[in-house]
Amino acid sequence: MSPPLRPAPAWTISQWFNVEGKPPTLDTLHGRVVVLYAFQMLCPSCVEHSVPQIRRVRELFAPETVAVIGLHTVFEHHSAMTPTALEAFLHEYRITIPVGVDAPAEDGSALPQTMRRYDLQGTPTTALLDRDGKVRRKSLGHIPDLRLGAEIMALVSESPPATQAAVQENASPATGFCPATPRTG
Amino acid sequence: MSPPLRPAPAWTISQWFNVEGKPPTLDTLHGRVVVLYAFQMLCPSCVEHSVPQIRRVRELFAPETVAVIGLHTVFEHHSAMTPTALEAFLHEYRITIPVGVDAPAEDGSALPQTMRRYDLQGTPTTALLDRDGKVRRKSLGHIPDLRLGAEIMALVSESPPATQAAVQENASPATGFCPATPRTG
Amino acid sequence: MSPPLRPAPAWTISQWFNVEGKPPTLDTLHGRVVVLYAFQMLCPSCVEHSVPQIRRVRELFAPETVAVIGLHTVFEHHSAMTPTALEAFLHEYRITIPVGVDAPAEDGSALPQTMRRYDLQGTPTTALLDRDGKVRRKSLGHIPDLRLGAEIMALVSESPPATQAAVQENASPATGFCPATPRTG
Amino acid sequence: MSPPLRPAPAWTISQWFNVEGKPPTLDTLHGRVVVLYAFQMLCPSCVEHSVPQIRRVRELFAPETVAVIGLHTVFEHHSAMTPTALEAFLHEYRITIPVGVDAPAEDGSALPQTMRRYDLQGTPTTALLDRDGKVRRKSLGHIPDLRLGAEIMALVSESPPATQAAVQENASPATGFCPATPRTG
Repeated sequence: MSPPLRPAPAWTISQWFNVEGKPPTLDTLHGRVVVLYAFQMLCPSCVEHSVPQIRRVRELFAPETVAVIGLHTVFEHHSAMTPTALEAFLHEYRITIPVGVDAPAEDGSALPQTMRRYDLQGTPTTALLDRDGKVRRKSLGHIPDLRLGAEIMALVSESPPATQAAVQENASPATGFCPATPRTG
Repeated sequence: MSPPLRPAPAWTISQWFNVEGKPPTLDTLHGRVVVLYAFQMLCPSCVEHSVPQIRRVRELFAPETVAVIGLHTVFEHHSAMTPTALEAFLHEYRITIPVGVDAPAEDGSALPQTMRRYDLQGTPTTALLDRDGKVRRKSLGHIPDLRLGAEIMALVSESPPATQAAVQENASPATGFCPATPRTG
Repeated sequence: MSPPLRPAPAWTISQWFNVEGKPPTLDTLHGRVVVLYAFQMLCPSCVEHSVPQIRRVRELFAPETVAVIGLHTVFEHHSAMTPTALEAFLHEYRITIPVGVDAPAEDGSALPQTMRRYDLQGTPTTALLDRDGKVRRKSLGHIPDLRLGAEIMALVSESPPATQAAVQENASPATGFCPATPRTG
Repeated sequence: MSPPLRPAPAWTISQWFNVEGKPPTLDTLHGRVVVLYAFQMLCPSCVEHSVPQIRRVRELFAPETVAVIGLHTVFEHHSAMTPTALEAFLHEYRITIPVGVDAPAEDGSALPQTMRRYDLQGTPTTALLDRDGKVRRKSLGHIPDLRLGAEIMALVSESPPATQAAVQENASPATGFCPATPRTG
C-alpha cells in the first residue's frame, strides 16, 4: 500500500474562501507539510468527522510547518452545493482554513477538475503532501486522529529543522485526572 | 515547557500482568520509544480515556518500534485496588499490554515507589521515553489522540531506521465516506 | 415554566418533502401526539443533535400514536438554504419524515411565516403537541433523549387507549452486557 | 415480549451504601415507580453506560415519584468486587443513589441471592417496577435513553396524580442552538 511518490498535481480553483491576498499554491506551500481535505458540505461523514478534525489539526500544528487546506469537490447535488451555500456553511461551522472551490469540469462530467486530476474516489479524502510537494498519502474516509497525527509528524520529521516546533505547546491540552495530592491515603 | 532530558528512573514493580517470560525493563526496551501509562483501575478518567487509547496506540504502532507499558500506581483506596482486583479489571477490559504493579512505599506513604521516583502528580499520567531511555514528556490527564500520535512519531523519527515501519498499515483504517462512483450527477 | 395551553397555530408550507398524497395538517394529525422539529439544514446543532434524534424518535414510537414532522424554518442564509438544497440534504442525511418548507414572509422579514406565528426564537426548536392539538412544550435547543422520551410518553398517556402500543417493541434494543452464564465463578 | 406481571421479589441485601436511616424496601417504595439497576463495578458496559444513565435518571425524575436503586450483583471475580472495593468505586464515580450489595448465595453458587430470585442473566440489567410493586420490564444490556424515558413515564402515568410533577423542570435543560435574533437577514 506504499503510495506513489509523485509531485502533487496543481489545483484548479474557481473561488477561494478564507483567503486574504494571494491564494495558496503548491509553490507557495513548498517546504511545508500540506494536509489537503477534499470534502463536500452535504457529505455527512465530512461534516461529522472532517470538520472537527480540521479544527484540531489546525490548532495543534504550527502553521509555518503544516498547512491545512480545504478543497470543495462537488461531484453530486451541484445545484445545492453552490459557492453561496458553501460560504454560509463555512460561516456556520466556523471553518477558518483556506477553502478552494474545485473548478467544475469543462466537458460536462460530474467530477470537478482537481478531483479528477487527483483521481479521488469520493469525500472526504485526506491527502498528505510532504515538504517537497509530493503526495505521500491519499485516503478516502475518516482517518482516526492517532494515525493522522503520526503520519503528519512523520512527514514533518523528514527534514532537519523540524520536529519540536511543529507542535504548538499550548494546543490540545490534557484534561481529566485524579490528583494525587488532595486525597492521598 | 521543554521537558527535562533525564534518563528514565527504574521501575520498582511488585507484580507483572500480561507478561510471559522476563518482564520488560528500561534496558530491554532500549532502542524503542516507550509509552508509559500510569493509571489506577478506579480512576474514572483512566477507564474512560486511557483504556481505549491504550488499545489504539498498541494497535497502530509496531511493537518493535513502540512499546506500551502500564503502571498501576495506587495512591488511594489501597484496599480496593489490590493486585487481585487489578487482574479482574485487566481481564474485563481486555487490556493485553504488560502492566506492572507499582511497589507500595516502604515508609508508609500513600504514594507507591515508582510514582514517587517519577514525581507523578496523579492518574492518568502518560510518560514518553525516547529510544535512548530518556523521559521526553510527562503529562497528567488525557492527551488527545492527534497530539499523542504526533508526539510518539516525533520520537520515533529521531533515529534513522524508523518512520515508515513504525505505523502498521492495516491498523486504524479509514471509515465513512460518500463514494463518487455510484451516484455522480 | 408551565407552557401556555393554546391550540397549535396552522402551518403555512410552501413545499413538502417526503410526502405522498395529501400533506399532513393539524386536522389530520388530531388524536396523535405530534413532535414538531423546526430546523435549518445549515444549523450545526440541528445537524449534530436533531437529525439523529429525529431518527430515534421515529423508530421508537408507533406512527399511529406519535407523528414526527420537520419544519424548515430558514431565517438566515436564505440563498443557501433553498428547497433544492434542502432536498439534497434530506437525501444525504436519510431523513424520511415529512418535512415542510416554512413559507417565506410576505413583508420582507427574515423570519418565515410559521416560525413567526409560533414565536420561535431559533433552531432547533422542538414543539410537542398533545392529542388534542395543543402546544404543550416549545423548547429551543437540543432536548436530551431521556427527557424527550418522558415528555412524549406523558402526552401519549393522557388518553385512555395509549401507553403500551405507543412504543414499538423491536425498536432501540438494549446492547452491551456481561452475561452471567458462560463465565460464572 | 410482554413481561410477566408478578410482584417484585424481595431483595436480600448484605450491606447498603448511600443510605441514611432505614434502607429502602419494596414496601417503603410502594406508590413510586422503581428503576432498579443490577450492575457489577467491573462490568465495562455498566461503567460506560449505566453509571452516567443512573445520574441522568436520578436528575430528571422527581424522587417522590421515581426511585432509583442500585443492586451490586456480583457473579464473577468475587474477590475483586468486594464491598470495600464497591465503596471506593461509588466514591470515585460519584454515585449517590442507594446501592445494596446482593447477598452471596448460601449454597456456594456464583450467583447472589437476589439475582437468582429475579432470574437475571447478567449485568447491567434494568428492571422497572410499577407503583404497585410489580416487575413490568427486565432488560439485559443498555437501554437507550429515549426508550427508558418513555417506559418510566408510561409507568408513572398509570396512576392519576402523576405526570406533570414527575419531571423536574430544571433538570436536563436544552443546549445548543442558532438564535434567530442577532443575525437575521
